[in-house]
Amino acid sequence: MTPWKAAKISDLTRDIDTPSLVLDLDAFERNLAKMQMSLSGSNVRLRPHAKSHKCPEIALRQIEMGAVGICCQKVSEAACFVDQGIQDILVTNQVVGTCKIEHLMGLAKRARMGVLVDHAEQVSALSAAATAHGATLDVYVEVDVGAGRCGVPPGNAAAILAHAVHNATGLNFAGLQCYHGSAQHLRTPSERQEAIRYATECALQSRRSIEALGITVPVITGAGTGSFMHELDSKVFTEIQAGSYVFMDRDYANNERGPNDPEFEHALFILTSVMSINQKGKVVVDAGLKASSVDSGMPGVWQRPGYLYIKASDEHGVVTLPETETINLADQIWLIPGHCDPTVNLYDEIICVRNGKVEEIWPISARGAVL
Amino acid sequence: MTPWKAAKISDLTRDIDTPSLVLDLDAFERNLAKMQMSLSGSNVRLRPHAKSHKCPEIALRQIEMGAVGICCQKVSEAACFVDQGIQDILVTNQVVGTCKIEHLMGLAKRARMGVLVDHAEQVSALSAAATAHGATLDVYVEVDVGAGRCGVPPGNAAAILAHAVHNATGLNFAGLQCYHGSAQHLRTPSERQEAIRYATECALQSRRSIEALGITVPVITGAGTGSFMHELDSKVFTEIQAGSYVFMDRDYANNERGPNDPEFEHALFILTSVMSINQKGKVVVDAGLKASSVDSGMPGVWQRPGYLYIKASDEHGVVTLPETETINLADQIWLIPGHCDPTVNLYDEIICVRNGKVEEIWPISARGAVL
Repeated sequence: MTPWKAAKISDLTRDIDTPSLVLDLDAFERNLAKMQMSLSGSNVRLRPHAKSHKCPEIALRQIEMGAVGICCQKVSEAACFVDQGIQDILVTNQVVGTCKIEHLMGLAKRARMGVLVDHAEQVSALSAAATAHGATLDVYVEVDVGAGRCGVPPGNAAAILAHAVHNATGLNFAGLQCYHGSAQHLRTPSERQEAIRYATECALQSRRSIEALGITVPVITGAGTGSFMHELDSKVFTEIQAGSYVFMDRDYANNERGPNDPEFEHALFILTSVMSINQKGKVVVDAGLKASSVDSGMPGVWQRPGYLYIKASDEHGVVTLPETETINLADQIWLIPGHCDPTVNLYDEIICVRNGKVEEIWPISARGAVL
Repeated sequence: MTPWKAAKISDLTRDIDTPSLVLDLDAFERNLAKMQMSLSGSNVRLRPHAKSHKCPEIALRQIEMGAVGICCQKVSEAACFVDQGIQDILVTNQVVGTCKIEHLMGLAKRARMGVLVDHAEQVSALSAAATAHGATLDVYVEVDVGAGRCGVPPGNAAAILAHAVHNATGLNFAGLQCYHGSAQHLRTPSERQEAIRYATECALQSRRSIEALGITVPVITGAGTGSFMHELDSKVFTEIQAGSYVFMDRDYANNERGPNDPEFEHALFILTSVMSINQKGKVVVDAGLKASSVDSGMPGVWQRPGYLYIKASDEHGVVTLPETETINLADQIWLIPGHCDPTVNLYDEIICVRNGKVEEIWPISARGAVL
């Protein structure tokens, strides 16, 4: 943890110490509103993914605007949100191992908790724990809808597992998880549409197989920022899990936008300063790998045409710029994270700015909550 | 932060909650000893880089074994080590901006602090602050010895800046920083030797230009885990800054070892559990991008021939394995971080194990200290 704060409330934005994670509140609030607008008129619920922000202040705002609850990716992440008063959380992951299941049961006594399964052993372990604790858990069967990661095959396999959940004590069969992660980053709208068309077929086929056993499928949940308009159009999905829309990172902005896709704005930035200017057409900034995750490529440079962040080492970033540009030591450059989720996870606080001033500072309470 | 601990002292290693950062104490101690052995008989000092571990417990052990102090990459990182009693720190970076310089001066009153410069403006800013605080700062001129990142060109430019430092009140011209970062990862010994031969020439040329002004160059510092035997052989470098040798990550292990290079062992691991086993020849583990930085490629799989970690998403890792292998839900897999520095920065604690048990748990005090 940094032994001093990068900023305090009312500081001028240009006085924030760097590198820091900065949220443009105006853009952020417009993103929240645009998502609600996109869903209005449908009866599809929003359960935004909190792995993108790990920040209870943001979750509370999402719920206030109409979200039914949130998604988390880990039990320990969920615990941070329950501690801050979030009452309805779906852990969109398989939870395996005694320690994690025990903690999940502890949370299930304090909030409505959901979890995924893709194997009968998970069902029996969860059921035994829920029974022992006198707790009830919402359990969703994860279907592999094209990503080839977790999940059971669509159709019969999903029905067999749903049936096991349905019959297990302490578990409430809550529906199907049909999330297609890799579809989010297909670059053209037609590729994304095609991937989600397939995911929808898998969801439908699984629902029919389950209903054939006389079991209702209350919820079909999935979708992310890159594709959710297609899940919305499907009339099969009943819940949307998008998360990154609140921030819009560089990688999502590289998607070609479809005609109906809302135009989310970049709201999250890494504020960085120039610390070396010895070479023509190139400067070194103080934000490197420990300030910005590069798993989805380098961060973008905000509102400085011709500037390119080309290389990150631990605490250095190399930025090329037109030789005609004048830039000085300590000048600030705003970077757009390549991938917001792992970048947020590097910081303890989000510094929220408006009109050139720090308006709020929000703790990233679930930073590092990887268990 | 995780709301519960992954382990406590005396727990069995197999009971550690996952994903967790685990240190094999035997291998770690052998690595420390091998480094000291490599330098014995020379009068080259070891000032290991603490950006790799961010852990005062490790720094204290390094100093106890003979290191003269440590390097840090950021002022806030250094502050975490000064707070734990480290008395001699070189910040191997340009420090720009009033806020950081003020904090650096605060540290300079509590410990011997060094810092780099590569521009006259940095010299005057540091001198003004040191004078105002009545503090003294060791200042090293950084020479660009081939990495093309920070630093002045070798020779005259280095001498001009050294002269400015020498004449500035509050500053002690301490020597030259001649670190060649990219040389560390050149795969063959001859490529690394050639790069360090060039770096040594740059260092010599700069030293001569400075000495021609009647100024002594007390220290020539640099080198990393990949190349330090070449700096040692040069008879020009007087200090070695290697850091990763304590852990040995997968990327460094990909270097072809030279005849005299010590064989450091993998000592740092990400302990992960299997959470999905539905596909032939493939499992999903609970360690993804937030458990292991992938900037230098995917983590390796430890002591499981034929296993390959092929893909990371936020909290999932996909591992392929021979179809003949049997693996169960909750089975543990040990991963070797692709790049130890940014991976360590994701965790709050290092869980130290020996003989199948947790022996110590060390806080990663400078985790997230990016300012």
